[in-house]
Amino acid sequence: MYSVCVRDYMMVAHSFKGEVFGPAQRLHGATFVVDVEFRRPELDPDGIVVDIGKATEVLKAILTGLNFRNLDEEPAFAGRNTTTEFLSRVVFDRMAAAIAKGELGAGARGIDHMRVTLHESHVAWAAFEAALSDG
Amino acid sequence: MYSVCVRDYMMVAHSFKGEVFGPAQRLHGATFVVDVEFRRPELDPDGIVVDIGKATEVLKAILTGLNFRNLDEEPAFAGRNTTTEFLSRVVFDRMAAAIAKGELGAGARGIDHMRVTLHESHVAWAAFEAALSDG
Amino acid sequence: MYSVCVRDYMMVAHSFKGEVFGPAQRLHGATFVVDVEFRRPELDPDGIVVDIGKATEVLKAILTGLNFRNLDEEPAFAGRNTTTEFLSRVVFDRMAAAIAKGELGAGARGIDHMRVTLHESHVAWAAFEAALSDG
Amino acid sequence: MYSVCVRDYMMVAHSFKGEVFGPAQRLHGATFVVDVEFRRPELDPDGIVVDIGKATEVLKAILTGLNFRNLDEEPAFAGRNTTTEFLSRVVFDRMAAAIAKGELGAGARGIDHMRVTLHESHVAWAAFEAALSDG
Amino acid sequence: MYSVCVRDYMMVAHSFKGEVFGPAQRLHGATFVVDVEFRRPELDPDGIVVDIGKATEVLKAILTGLNFRNLDEEPAFAGRNTTTEFLSRVVFDRMAAAIAKGELGAGARGIDHMRVTLHESHVAWAAFEAALSDG
Amino acid sequence: MYSVCVRDYMMVAHSFKGEVFGPAQRLHGATFVVDVEFRRPELDPDGIVVDIGKATEVLKAILTGLNFRNLDEEPAFAGRNTTTEFLSRVVFDRMAAAIAKGELGAGARGIDHMRVTLHESHVAWAAFEAALSDG
Repeated sequence: MYSVCVRDYMMVAHSFKGEVFGPAQRLHGATFVVDVEFRRPELDPDGIVVDIGKATEVLKAILTGLNFRNLDEEPAFAGRNTTTEFLSRVVFDRMAAAIAKGELGAGARGIDHMRVTLHESHVAWAAFEAALSDG
Repeated sequence: MYSVCVRDYMMVAHSFKGEVFGPAQRLHGATFVVDVEFRRPELDPDGIVVDIGKATEVLKAILTGLNFRNLDEEPAFAGRNTTTEFLSRVVFDRMAAAIAKGELGAGARGIDHMRVTLHESHVAWAAFEAALSDG
Repeated sequence: MYSVCVRDYMMVAHSFKGEVFGPAQRLHGATFVVDVEFRRPELDPDGIVVDIGKATEVLKAILTGLNFRNLDEEPAFAGRNTTTEFLSRVVFDRMAAAIAKGELGAGARGIDHMRVTLHESHVAWAAFEAALSDG
Repeated sequence: MYSVCVRDYMMVAHSFKGEVFGPAQRLHGATFVVDVEFRRPELDPDGIVVDIGKATEVLKAILTGLNFRNLDEEPAFAGRNTTTEFLSRVVFDRMAAAIAKGELGAGARGIDHMRVTLHESHVAWAAFEAALSDG
Repeated sequence: MYSVCVRDYMMVAHSFKGEVFGPAQRLHGATFVVDVEFRRPELDPDGIVVDIGKATEVLKAILTGLNFRNLDEEPAFAGRNTTTEFLSRVVFDRMAAAIAKGELGAGARGIDHMRVTLHESHVAWAAFEAALSDG
Repeated sequence: MYSVCVRDYMMVAHSFKGEVFGPAQRLHGATFVVDVEFRRPELDPDGIVVDIGKATEVLKAILTGLNFRNLDEEPAFAGRNTTTEFLSRVVFDRMAAAIAKGELGAGARGIDHMRVTLHESHVAWAAFEAALSDG
C-alpha cells in the first residue's frame, strides 16, 4: 500500500455544548494543522499516488471554506459540536467529494483509502480514516 | 474509524540483559514521550472519541507510576528487559484496565482499539497496538 | 549564558481590527504553543537556572488566565489587537511579575533575561524578549 | 502488534518526466528523512522487535547506496520517475531483502510487516507498507 | 525586542567543490525548510512586527526564484559553493532588498534585524543573521 | 553572523541532590537530544562555517563519553548535580577544547561563538552559550 500526505492548516473559533467539555464550553479557538493521507495499492502510470500540486490546492480550498471563522455560526454545523474528531470527518468528506468530482485529476480515482489528521496542539490530535466507496 | 491521541512523558533509568544490547547493558536512562491513540468506529453523543481531559489525567497517573524511577528495581518488571516496545505494552495494558474500570468515563467503553507509541529519541520510537477485548 | 525553556499552550478566540489583517478581521481562533526561555549568566547553588517545576506551574497559571476565552471580551486588552507578538509580550510581562513577586523561588531572581515564543502554526511564530529590570 | 521505527536521511538530485510534475520536471533535489517501521505480533526472547543497532546500520548502508547522487543517472531507475512514493518502495524492498538475508539477525525473521516513510518537506511525505512474504 | 517568523521551503540540486565536502562533491540535492525571523524593538500601530501575509508572499517569491533548480547552473552563483550557510545569506539579502523596496509594506521599514535559517535535514541547519542597515 | 548546527543524542541515568528537585532526587534517566550551533562572522574559503562531517564526528565522540552511563558514578561530576543546563556546559567545554586542539580542522578556529542546547523532553530544554576565547 502506497501513501502520500500533504499538510496545511486553519484557525477557527468555536465552543462546545456538554459538561464533558469543561472550560471549552466557552467560546475559544484553535489552530488545526491538517494532514491528509491518500492511500492506494498501486501507483498510477506517472509513478505517483496523487498529483501533489492538485491535492495541495484542493486542501487549501477546503480549509479556506472553514478558516478564519467562528464555527458556531456556520449553518452546516448547526446543533453539532465541532470537535477535532468531527472536523477531521468534515475535511475527509469534502476531500472525498472532490476526488469523486475529479478535482484531483482522473488518476486520483485510484485512491481507495484516506486518513485525515487534525493536530490541535503539541500534545493532542484527532483523525478520521475510511475506505473510499468510489475507490 | 475515528482516533484521538494525547501525549505526555516520563524519565526513567534502566539497563538491559543480553549481548544484543551492547552498551545499553549498562545502567542508563531515557525520556519517553508517550502518545496514546484511542480508536472507535463512531463518535459518542457528545461528538468525541474520549473525554480528552480524563484521558490526559489517567495517562499522567499511569506515567507517574513509572516516572523518575530505576525500572531495574521495580518488582513488576523483575526478570524482564524494559525495552521501549515492552514499555509500550505496559502503558497499553494499564490504560486498557483504566478504560475497563470506567476511569475514562462510561462513553469510553466504545473505544475498541488503542495504539501506544513511546518516542525514545528524535530517531527511534516503538509502539504496541491491539483491539480492546472489552471494546 | 545559561538558558532553561518550558512549554505549554492555550486555545483562544479573537479578531483583529485593520485592513492589514484581511480575513483575520473575522472572529477566529488559535492554538498558541508557548515557550518561555529563562536566561542567566551563572547557575544557582543547586546547579539550575530556575526551579523547572515552579516555572511550569506559574506558566500554566498565566495561560489559564487566557485559555478557553474570547480575547475580544477581555477588559485588559480593550482597544488592542491581540496579535501573536502582542500576546508574547503579555505572557512575558506576567512571568516577569511572577519572578519579581518570588513565585518562582528566591533563586529565580538571578534570571536576567527572558524570551517568550508563541507558535501559532507549523509555519509561523512570534516572540518577545528583553532583559529583566530586576535581574 | 509491536513496532519499532528508526530514522535516517539522504540527499539526492533527480527530475521527473510528465506534465503532472510542473516545475519538478527540471533537475532539482530533496532531503528525504526516512523512517522504517518494523512490525511483528510478538517480541523475541530479548524483548525486542529488532536489534535496533543492526537496523540502524543496515538502513544507513541502504541510504548510502542512494545518497549524494543524481538518481537520473542510476541504471537501476532507468525509465522510472523516482518519486517519493517510488523511493519508499525501493527502500522497503532493499530492507526486506536484508532481513531475508539475515543482516538484521536471525530474530528479525519474525518481522512480518514493514512501513517505510520518506518525509520530503515539513508539509509532505510518502510511504509504502506491506506484509513481508518471508515473515 | 519583538520577532515574527514565517516558514516555507525549496527543493534544489547542487554540488560542491573542495575535498572537505567528501561525497557531497557529487551532484545531489536538498530540501531546505526556510525560516525568516523579522525583528524590531517596537510594534507598528497595528500591533504587528510585519504584515505576515506580505512576508509569506515575498518569501515564496524569493524561493520560487531558486526552487526546482540545479544551482550549479545559476549564473548568480557561478564559482561559489551554494552551501546551506551561503544560501541563508542569499535569502537574507533578497529579503532585505524586498523590505528596502517596500514590498513588505511601509511599516516593515521598522524591522531592524533579520535571521534566516535553512533546515537541511532533521539533524542539521544553518543560518545567517544581521542588522538591517536601513532599519 | 553565520551559524551551522548539528544534532545527536545520548541516554543517561542520574539523580539530583536538593529538595528543589522533588521526585527527580530518585535515580531516573533522560534522553538528551543535543544541538551544537557554531557561529562566526565570515565563512571560510570553502564557503562553510565548519566541516559538518568533522563536527558530527566530534559531537558523537563527546556524547559517546557520556552515553549509556549512570552519571552519578562519573568521577568528573562528583558532588555536582548533572542538570540539563550543567550538561549543556559540559558538552560546550568539550567541544571548545576539541576546536582548540584542531579536531574540527584548521578552519574551525574562525568559530567565535557556540550554543549547546539539550532537549530533555517535548516540553523542556536547556542551553549554554558563550564566546570562544580562542575565537
